[in-house]
Amino acid sequence: APATSTTPSSPTRSGRKSALVDPLQFMQLDAMLSAGERSLRQRARRVLEEGRDDKLLNELYERAEFSPALVDLAKQLGPAGLQIKGNGCPGLTQSETLVLAIELGRLDASFATFYLVHSGLAMASINVAGTPEQKARWLPRMARYELIGAFGLTEPDYGSNATGLQTTARKVPGGWVLNGHKRWIGNATFCDIIVVWARDTASNAIKGFVVEKGMKGFKPHKIDNKMSLRIVQNADFVLDECFVPEDNHLSAAKKFSDGTQMVLESSRAVVAASAAGCLLGAYERALQYCMDRTQFNKPLASFQLVQERLMRALGHLQASILTVIRLGRMMDEGQATMAQIALAKAWVTRTAREAVALCREVVGGNGIISDFGTIKPLMDLEAIYTYEGTYDVNMLIAGRLVTGLSAFV
Amino acid sequence: APATSTTPSSPTRSGRKSALVDPLQFMQLDAMLSAGERSLRQRARRVLEEGRDDKLLNELYERAEFSPALVDLAKQLGPAGLQIKGNGCPGLTQSETLVLAIELGRLDASFATFYLVHSGLAMASINVAGTPEQKARWLPRMARYELIGAFGLTEPDYGSNATGLQTTARKVPGGWVLNGHKRWIGNATFCDIIVVWARDTASNAIKGFVVEKGMKGFKPHKIDNKMSLRIVQNADFVLDECFVPEDNHLSAAKKFSDGTQMVLESSRAVVAASAAGCLLGAYERALQYCMDRTQFNKPLASFQLVQERLMRALGHLQASILTVIRLGRMMDEGQATMAQIALAKAWVTRTAREAVALCREVVGGNGIISDFGTIKPLMDLEAIYTYEGTYDVNMLIAGRLVTGLSAFV
Amino acid sequence: APATSTTPSSPTRSGRKSALVDPLQFMQLDAMLSAGERSLRQRARRVLEEGRDDKLLNELYERAEFSPALVDLAKQLGPAGLQIKGNGCPGLTQSETLVLAIELGRLDASFATFYLVHSGLAMASINVAGTPEQKARWLPRMARYELIGAFGLTEPDYGSNATGLQTTARKVPGGWVLNGHKRWIGNATFCDIIVVWARDTASNAIKGFVVEKGMKGFKPHKIDNKMSLRIVQNADFVLDECFVPEDNHLSAAKKFSDGTQMVLESSRAVVAASAAGCLLGAYERALQYCMDRTQFNKPLASFQLVQERLMRALGHLQASILTVIRLGRMMDEGQATMAQIALAKAWVTRTAREAVALCREVVGGNGIISDFGTIKPLMDLEAIYTYEGTYDVNMLIAGRLVTGLSAFV
Amino acid sequence: APATSTTPSSPTRSGRKSALVDPLQFMQLDAMLSAGERSLRQRARRVLEEGRDDKLLNELYERAEFSPALVDLAKQLGPAGLQIKGNGCPGLTQSETLVLAIELGRLDASFATFYLVHSGLAMASINVAGTPEQKARWLPRMARYELIGAFGLTEPDYGSNATGLQTTARKVPGGWVLNGHKRWIGNATFCDIIVVWARDTASNAIKGFVVEKGMKGFKPHKIDNKMSLRIVQNADFVLDECFVPEDNHLSAAKKFSDGTQMVLESSRAVVAASAAGCLLGAYERALQYCMDRTQFNKPLASFQLVQERLMRALGHLQASILTVIRLGRMMDEGQATMAQIALAKAWVTRTAREAVALCREVVGGNGIISDFGTIKPLMDLEAIYTYEGTYDVNMLIAGRLVTGLSAFV
Ligand SMILES: Cc1cc2nc3c(=O)[nH]c(=O)nc-3n(C[C@H](O)[C@H](O)[C@H](O)COP(=O)(O)OP(=O)(O)OC[C@H]3O[C@@H](n4cnc5c(N)ncnc54)[C@H](O)[C@@H]3O)c2cc1C
Ligand SMILES: Cc1cc2nc3c(=O)[nH]c(=O)nc-3n(C[C@H](O)[C@H](O)[C@H](O)COP(=O)(O)OP(=O)(O)OC[C@H]3O[C@@H](n4cnc5c(N)ncnc54)[C@H](O)[C@@H]3O)c2cc1C
Ligand SMILES: Cc1cc2nc3c(=O)[nH]c(=O)nc-3n(C[C@H](O)[C@H](O)[C@H](O)COP(=O)(O)OP(=O)(O)OC[C@H]3O[C@@H](n4cnc5c(N)ncnc54)[C@H](O)[C@@H]3O)c2cc1C
Ligand SMILES: Cc1cc2nc3c(=O)[nH]c(=O)nc-3n(C[C@H](O)[C@H](O)[C@H](O)COP(=O)(O)OP(=O)(O)OC[C@H]3O[C@@H](n4cnc5c(N)ncnc54)[C@H](O)[C@@H]3O)c2cc1C
Repeated sequence: APATSTTPSSPTRSGRKSALVDPLQFMQLDAMLSAGERSLRQRARRVLEEGRDDKLLNELYERAEFSPALVDLAKQLGPAGLQIKGNGCPGLTQSETLVLAIELGRLDASFATFYLVHSGLAMASINVAGTPEQKARWLPRMARYELIGAFGLTEPDYGSNATGLQTTARKVPGGWVLNGHKRWIGNATFCDIIVVWARDTASNAIKGFVVEKGMKGFKPHKIDNKMSLRIVQNADFVLDECFVPEDNHLSAAKKFSDGTQMVLESSRAVVAASAAGCLLGAYERALQYCMDRTQFNKPLASFQLVQERLMRALGHLQASILTVIRLGRMMDEGQATMAQIALAKAWVTRTAREAVALCREVVGGNGIISDFGTIKPLMDLEAIYTYEGTYDVNMLIAGRLVTGLSAFV
Repeated sequence: APATSTTPSSPTRSGRKSALVDPLQFMQLDAMLSAGERSLRQRARRVLEEGRDDKLLNELYERAEFSPALVDLAKQLGPAGLQIKGNGCPGLTQSETLVLAIELGRLDASFATFYLVHSGLAMASINVAGTPEQKARWLPRMARYELIGAFGLTEPDYGSNATGLQTTARKVPGGWVLNGHKRWIGNATFCDIIVVWARDTASNAIKGFVVEKGMKGFKPHKIDNKMSLRIVQNADFVLDECFVPEDNHLSAAKKFSDGTQMVLESSRAVVAASAAGCLLGAYERALQYCMDRTQFNKPLASFQLVQERLMRALGHLQASILTVIRLGRMMDEGQATMAQIALAKAWVTRTAREAVALCREVVGGNGIISDFGTIKPLMDLEAIYTYEGTYDVNMLIAGRLVTGLSAFV
Repeated sequence: APATSTTPSSPTRSGRKSALVDPLQFMQLDAMLSAGERSLRQRARRVLEEGRDDKLLNELYERAEFSPALVDLAKQLGPAGLQIKGNGCPGLTQSETLVLAIELGRLDASFATFYLVHSGLAMASINVAGTPEQKARWLPRMARYELIGAFGLTEPDYGSNATGLQTTARKVPGGWVLNGHKRWIGNATFCDIIVVWARDTASNAIKGFVVEKGMKGFKPHKIDNKMSLRIVQNADFVLDECFVPEDNHLSAAKKFSDGTQMVLESSRAVVAASAAGCLLGAYERALQYCMDRTQFNKPLASFQLVQERLMRALGHLQASILTVIRLGRMMDEGQATMAQIALAKAWVTRTAREAVALCREVVGGNGIISDFGTIKPLMDLEAIYTYEGTYDVNMLIAGRLVTGLSAFV
Repeated sequence: APATSTTPSSPTRSGRKSALVDPLQFMQLDAMLSAGERSLRQRARRVLEEGRDDKLLNELYERAEFSPALVDLAKQLGPAGLQIKGNGCPGLTQSETLVLAIELGRLDASFATFYLVHSGLAMASINVAGTPEQKARWLPRMARYELIGAFGLTEPDYGSNATGLQTTARKVPGGWVLNGHKRWIGNATFCDIIVVWARDTASNAIKGFVVEKGMKGFKPHKIDNKMSLRIVQNADFVLDECFVPEDNHLSAAKKFSDGTQMVLESSRAVVAASAAGCLLGAYERALQYCMDRTQFNKPLASFQLVQERLMRALGHLQASILTVIRLGRMMDEGQATMAQIALAKAWVTRTAREAVALCREVVGGNGIISDFGTIKPLMDLEAIYTYEGTYDVNMLIAGRLVTGLSAFV
């Protein structure tokens, strides 16, 4: 008779270990990193493994909630700001940033997204478009997570075609009045400041503004029933005659495209890396499960159909990480344009999506439960495949460079 | 300035309609049905469209909860019991059952699963393995949904290899004492009776027992953090010296395999049909969305990359429904064995999974929100692909018939 | 020591047979046919099996040559002309035509193409666009294969965009003078008559003309180095002031689109069917091989990775044939437009291409040799996927009907 | 009227050039090479571009013939022998070898295979298993292509399971007598020496022997009807009491596995690289064609469906080359075992096969003609995917290392 003390939900685990637990060892991908990158990775891995609370993450995911504990975890990784130099920011290289993003994605893609939106979008926008005073005002506190940021570009009717945005900024004495809808804005339900992009009614140029929590005429609504990156709090909001003082107008960037382009290039690369990280996490969990679990008196990992899937996922994983590392190198050397980044983002997210589905599948019924580590990345990759430029849009961005022909319309 | 009354979460809809809204019309698949099947389908469609409450479904999905409202909706479709004849059951043909299952899946796969577990597994087991008295005692009330049923075969350590199950039944005066673990049992958190399969300690034969709510030594635990079919309540439970009276021993089936085989054959076919239904629903929603939404001043459906994906999904949908219809015909003529059903189930769920991902993708960011009708079927298909025999296991069942060679171990 | 009499090229065959040799039996697809269709299929199967000479076919393929023996084999199947009624033609239904085409494709896709070009394109064009006298002049002899036909629509610069064709027809006393290039014209190196489509210099309307072997100003060149359908003789030719008498102007069709549309609809459906036939043939051969061959002391078919691929191919095969049968029914009932046919053609060729690759793969090294029955269909499907409307073009034709939006340019 | 001087087979070319012709530039993959590797690559590219005779290659392919002109071309690349040090061989690093193999595959996969069999299999075997005298006897002349080599391991009944080989070697005074069948042996119809692996009837150990052209009891038969790597001459042969003098027994290797393992490791990596090269060549040709060709008044490359396929192929290409480069680095550092090589070979050939199919497809009808540069690599990849360990076998080799579980039987 079974011991009643056993909680019924745990299938027996043989405790069998795979011969090679760490997939990054297989082709020694770590050896491709510089000493600095490697130690950054090791440190991030250690902090995140120590700080990881899967129970909490799964509960937050279940309830689609964010928690300040995630901010605390982020803090353990050091100051926010990624590549920003000065103002208390770490001034990472692009390669270092991507190495870090792999680790973030490996832990949890929602966490990675929160991290990216704050550092890679909100802070980075202030850094490229803000005056020295604006940077000094916001960046140090953001680096210390005293202020959390968001980035408001997308609108209900302007997603892939974001530069067609319709939110307006009307110059008034002492500041600007903003009107419009924004959609999908991550962190915006709880954050302190949002970089909002709006069209100057006078010049038609797109300009950046920092909207602060509690300003009149602005109230975010959480997007409900979101089935991907559930821990990320995405908001819709209407800006209704929302007054923003002149000091909050990010006036240093001359053109939207210049600065924002740089921000989006870097963040898009980070998204590619976090997708590779998702796959890394899912693969590790799937492999471990298939070693551990027995059916028909054999470990799952010994069935040809299971083993081939695991190896296919490993091949995809390696190729994804190689692509990400190469991308970082190119960016650091100033050799990558948006086209290279777009192709890498599209290719890696597509490849990761395919491979994580293989990982999910070999875990069988348990594969649909967050605790077993493969379904969350699978769901999350749906958003990741789509945001920062959908797969198709990124392919067409790359194609435009290669062919010289624009195929968007 | 935008009207503040507009809820920010709704992107503008052009209201543009596709020229051909109903995918079943494309190859007039309805025309392949008999008049009876067609009217059954139309009736089911009408009832489900009238009774559908997407808001409720999405909320339940969000909270991973079941609702009695779903039982009420099921009632609208007429008595439960599918193919069972007599005892107040509808006595459908297999083809009719599959036609109905497509409609159930089109509405919601969790609803379809609830329906199937109750009618196609619990009731069907009592019907094949129960004595006339047992049938008369339970089936009429189950047909009227006064009693809800569940089906307990799988164990934590025996999934694909279910016939290796370890739960025991020890004969004692006046009944049997059950001991063991069960896992994944749908409806089991709230249902009234569960058909439990256990191994007779004396003969080693697998026997069926009806465990009733509140019996001592039995208490189900809901499986948490489940990211697929979230409305279905799956439970783990330990049976700890649980006494079941002799009257609850389903003693009419001579061998486990006989009766259960028939039950599983029919239910596996139903699962194939519900997967096709999932795709049907997702395709309709994706098509409608891509007609409705504009980017770059063009409806999404007019972009080649979007249009090709929609048509690929339509091709997959048609092939899936043709496969399901053919399967029903064969089963009604007594020509299909488990092998045919297994291949159809594996093929259709694989095809639907691939096609629903295309549907999800073309909806862009909104594709990850339940309200837009594609992410829920995508997540649900992960479970459907895996339960009632995983994809691989079903392929090997088919392969065994075709080749005469068993490749399971 | 090995017997020197053994030819070295034959691996040992165990002679093991699969339990279920005929894939059409698996879901009893024959039972879906009418008695007439079934007996037509059986007769075609018998004739083709008796007449089949794989050695010859493989040699012709190797040398990229056609042989009159293929015309003789075609004759065994009865008069040419497929659906044409009268003039000695068989007057088949569309469904019968597709059933026949499956068998043709199963034998050899080049043979099927030869058959289709003669009957389904050349004869069918004369039938829809010719006057009664013209029909009586050519069709009876074509039905008896005394004259072989070809169909000249495509031009070097007008493939997918065939209706943009630039070949001109200038009215002169007693006839017309043709000028232009044609490309890809099957059978044209040896055939007796070619239906050539050209643009009337006066009206700009596209008109049909029968160009006869040996006419001045016309000389076909065989397209060399063709790696698909190698037995089909495709030709390029220049029409250089080629005079065609008025009697050879197919003057009964009022508009190009009317008649040709009907011809192309029917022939496109035939292509879908022949692709399903290719897969049928490849699957049978692959299954047989994997039963027969042993590695590591086990039949290949007993390895999970091999067995799953075979079953995947079988699932694809069944779905393809179901799609083809459904298409035939719809066309016979006048319910299918080009859109339905286009989707079926695109979907079936894509599916067959994917499945035949699986069949090729499990045959290992021998899979690249024609004698083993899988590489030829694999290569042939590349052409089939592309001709009669490429995959993409057919998807966009279907999409245009469904969405009401043309996405061609 | 068209000029009759125009050969009809050439569609008009707009001469439009893609903005970025060289795919290796996209992510500057050359920059990852050392100066030496880069100059080796540039030299190889130059020699092969200057020496390339596509007309000849296509004719040989068409007729399935080899030509001494290919030996001459090989000579232009410098002495044969790849990694062998001494005896007139170049002593390349593994990375250099792979860089060269990419260029060979880019030109023509049959040429690459000829090259590999001679240098990477025949010479390499003599190098690892031969005595210093044997090396001195054969290697210098092979390095100068005065003698061409082959490698005879596979047998009709022992392919994936090659180490089960049944060919026997019986010790007799002054030498050995060989009996058995060999199959698939590349170059063997015309070459001067073949390294044959056979089982010592006394010890059962597998030993290597150099069989020379014209020896009694040995006569190769060309394998006909081969539809992949058609320029490579693969032979079957029976060894019938074939006497080989003791001097031709490669007696330096103690165990088959040791030496041969090293040979096969290196050659398997070369195969992966040549597959990436195939894709490189196909992509370049497809891109160029899609720039050049117009339909519906637009360059093919401007259609979304075409452009996305090209970019997908580019993504696959980059990932393949990154994988190959990484593999070379690991091997040079002595860090890769057969498992890493096996996964890279399986992954790259699978990826290349998928991507070359995309390249073939966008070229439309012309895509099936060798002259247009995509169908040959597509056909060739079928063999490449299968030889040097089939895809599945290589995946299971990798899986065995990772999981510690052998899943072969
Ligand atoms: C979880 C999540 C978080 C996000 N966070 C933020 C954030 O913090 N800040 C912010 O500003 N935005 C954010 N976004 C918005 C995101 O950037 C957009 O979702 C993305 O740009 C796609 O836009 P869309 O959703 O409107 O899709 P659409 O543009 O409507 O695309 C729908 C489909 O049409 C296709 N399509 C569109 N245009 C073309 C074309 N020209 N040719 C071919 N196909 C086309 C797409 O590829 C896609 O398949 C977030 C989105 C998500 C899902
Ligand atoms: C949502 C849901 C509802 C369910 N409802 C019920 C219910 O109501 N009642 C009930 O009794 N059960 C139920 N089940 C259980 C279901 O039947 C099992 O999940 C299913 O049989 C698979 O078993 P498993 O999850 O243990 O996977 P495993 O058997 O552990 O399989 C894991 C992986 O290994 C593979 N594998 C296993 N064996 C082999 C082999 N021999 N060769 C190759 N590969 C192999 C599988 O294909 C899979 O990829 C439900 C499951 C789910 C997910
Ligand atoms: C073996 C063979 C036999 C044939 N026999 C005959 C015959 O007997 N008689 C005859 O008249 N013709 C024949 N054809 C010609 C055949 O009909 C054409 O090859 C076919 O229509 C495709 O045209 P194309 O080859 O010019 O490709 P292209 O039109 O150049 O297409 C190239 C690529 O561009 C894509 N493309 C083209 N337009 C678009 C668009 N608007 N949007 C997106 N993508 C696009 C295509 O999908 C394809 O991927 C034959 C062809 C072959 C290969
Ligand atoms: C063009 C070409 C050139 C070649 N050149 C040479 C040469 O020069 N010298 C030489 O010695 N050899 C040569 N070979 C032989 C080559 O190495 C073999 O073809 C290869 O090893 C596969 O063996 P096979 O063809 O017998 O396939 P098989 O071993 O019969 O395999 C058939 C199928 O069964 C699968 N399979 C086999 N075993 C298992 C298993 N345990 N589990 C799951 N699936 C399994 C395979 O993956 C494959 O799908 C050449 C082959 C080709 C095609």
